Amino acid sequence: MAEKDDPRIKFGILGCISIARLARAIASSTSATLHAIASQQQHSADEPAGFSPVEGVTAKKLYGSYEELLDDEEVDAVYVALPTSRHARWAAEAARRGKHVMVEKPPALDLEALTEIVEACEGSGVQFMDATMWLHHPRTAAMKAFLSDQEAFGEIKEMHTSVTFKVSPSFLKNDVRVKPDLDALGALGDAGWYCIGSILWAADYRLPRTVTALPGTVFNEAGVIMSCGASLQFGGSFVSTFQCSFLSSMTMDMVANGSKGSLRACDFVLPFDEARASYYTSSGAWFLEGLAGWAPSPVEHAVATDRQQVVFMVEEFSSLVKGIKRDGVKPDLKWPEISQKTQLVVDKVKLSIDRGGGRQCRNLIGLVLLVFFAIIVNFLFLL
Amino acid sequence: MAEKDDPRIKFGILGCISIARLARAIASSTSATLHAIASQQQHSADEPAGFSPVEGVTAKKLYGSYEELLDDEEVDAVYVALPTSRHARWAAEAARRGKHVMVEKPPALDLEALTEIVEACEGSGVQFMDATMWLHHPRTAAMKAFLSDQEAFGEIKEMHTSVTFKVSPSFLKNDVRVKPDLDALGALGDAGWYCIGSILWAADYRLPRTVTALPGTVFNEAGVIMSCGASLQFGGSFVSTFQCSFLSSMTMDMVANGSKGSLRACDFVLPFDEARASYYTSSGAWFLEGLAGWAPSPVEHAVATDRQQVVFMVEEFSSLVKGIKRDGVKPDLKWPEISQKTQLVVDKVKLSIDRGGGRQCRNLIGLVLLVFFAIIVNFLFLL
Repeated sequence: MAEKDDPRIKFGILGCISIARLARAIASSTSATLHAIASQQQHSADEPAGFSPVEGVTAKKLYGSYEELLDDEEVDAVYVALPTSRHARWAAEAARRGKHVMVEKPPALDLEALTEIVEACEGSGVQFMDATMWLHHPRTAAMKAFLSDQEAFGEIKEMHTSVTFKVSPSFLKNDVRVKPDLDALGALGDAGWYCIGSILWAADYRLPRTVTALPGTVFNEAGVIMSCGASLQFGGSFVSTFQCSFLSSMTMDMVANGSKGSLRACDFVLPFDEARASYYTSSGAWFLEGLAGWAPSPVEHAVATDRQQVVFMVEEFSSLVKGIKRDGVKPDLKWPEISQKTQLVVDKVKLSIDRGGGRQCRNLIGLVLLVFFAIIVNFLFLL
Repeated sequence: MAEKDDPRIKFGILGCISIARLARAIASSTSATLHAIASQQQHSADEPAGFSPVEGVTAKKLYGSYEELLDDEEVDAVYVALPTSRHARWAAEAARRGKHVMVEKPPALDLEALTEIVEACEGSGVQFMDATMWLHHPRTAAMKAFLSDQEAFGEIKEMHTSVTFKVSPSFLKNDVRVKPDLDALGALGDAGWYCIGSILWAADYRLPRTVTALPGTVFNEAGVIMSCGASLQFGGSFVSTFQCSFLSSMTMDMVANGSKGSLRACDFVLPFDEARASYYTSSGAWFLEGLAGWAPSPVEHAVATDRQQVVFMVEEFSSLVKGIKRDGVKPDLKWPEISQKTQLVVDKVKLSIDRGGGRQCRNLIGLVLLVFFAIIVNFLFLL
């Protein structure tokens, strides 16, 4: 096959943070090919110490600057694997040059920065997607079908998710996710992104009425979040909570409870086993005669796959890009919408954390003190 | 065996609400016998419409008033199965007459009422215990051993529990647990009791630093809680949440996550199967090479039993009573302590709900307005 007839989408990767998985996914996909990698290793802010070239990753071209890669007209799409604080600049620039854009999650530090990227994509008519892999696993669609089943699950009432993993001392010292100038959202942007995303996914991407951080946020010395949680309350008496952390044992739990049934998964972000992903459902559980127990207990469902979820994601993205490039289809706006809604809730959790428990009250206490001060001054004038 | 030599503890039951299970447990226990039942059916406040005599429940004596049962010198211990609002009066009275006291949970409407009961028990040297059955199941001790394992579980970091069940329209209309004059705590006192109790159990009965209700509490028309949740934050960066409800599908989930491992049970309040109760543990989970999954997945542990947990509870209580009665042992103060701490946190959740989101702020706004009013009056005097 002549190269110009190659129907595969040509990817360029900006930066080298955790590219191994995506590079391998592109290599094993039938619809994409890794055309170029741009690395500016001399720029330690973008690619901090600790980066090392990834074995088995080969690209046709290697560039020493992101500009050069974006100048390469053969590149159809870029995967932005830079620290979060650099996403807005380079993802928006890629979009303005007509490249389709996939960004590592969290896609941005806040909604404003993400909107800059999304608007650049809209302006150029290119596809945007953040690299939240679990949304592309076939198990996720199967779980969603259960949540949508009015007879088996009913209306959603409660949900709790936790995504936690205990990082190493070296991660706590060196990883981009603990640096205020690189990934200032810390555990909230990394693990919390999945928690919030899964709750919005279960809520059919309605937005919560209230977002309230839970007491007990843990920060590192630089003020980056290492562990936090929040409550998201929706209309229809749907209340959810989540906890995310860099400081505790690895969990990826999702429990959703409806008026008629419940859904559980212990590995929703990444299946334990790449070939077989399980979830558990229960419907109509009730007490047995004489309260001697209850039934049914949750039933396991396994979804077998021949690919890792990252490959499903690359294939879905490539298929959208192909449709736009070859068939004149419009970009799928579902993906930027999901990203922006998730980012909006991340912003709100961050705001609630920054305000602290009762910070609003403390502001009012300040006001009261000011007024008392005014009264005292007032009396001094009287004397 | 002559009756006077019968070593079994003679139980009297006050009230007839949900006595079937306990009566059967007493009957199947080798250490207790059901001596008397007192029912005041004409007092509809104590035994509301809907009560019907329970099949298979037989007692040597049936009394038409609680007073008569408490006058029966043969009764060693009473089980108070009245609506929660009546517990303090009758449980304290039973204690003052030298009866050992077991009360249905929640033991009281608030800590003050519970303390009245506990102090009466202390004054008479009798045993107190609330009827929280799951604490007596052998699985609970096995789970606690895992939580206490510094190598396998480490330090506790996060926990979430949910106890929910969708009640019938007739329950929503008639059950004592929806009536403000009978069980004013509603779902918080009934299902939430287990949630709070399990979190305190996991925390080795340390008390939380903060107790914060989650937004989204649902009340019935009479103002009784049908659904609510809260966050309990402890020292040592341990953050927990719970949700309890009468309005959603049945769940009895507990997930505890430590620095090194995690514990899960889907039926912690009442095992699905009375002969075999499961829990799941995981230790040292981490990503596989190339992020192709993670391991280990949770491992199931099953605890086989030959008795229902209610029988374990009756036997533990009877054994304590026997020790006090026959061997001069002191009452085990662990049980009133557990009850009082759980009730204290119930009180705090209720207070946080009653204050609503930011009610404290609204109080401060009131104060600000008052101060401004004072200033204006002040200026009027000046003129």
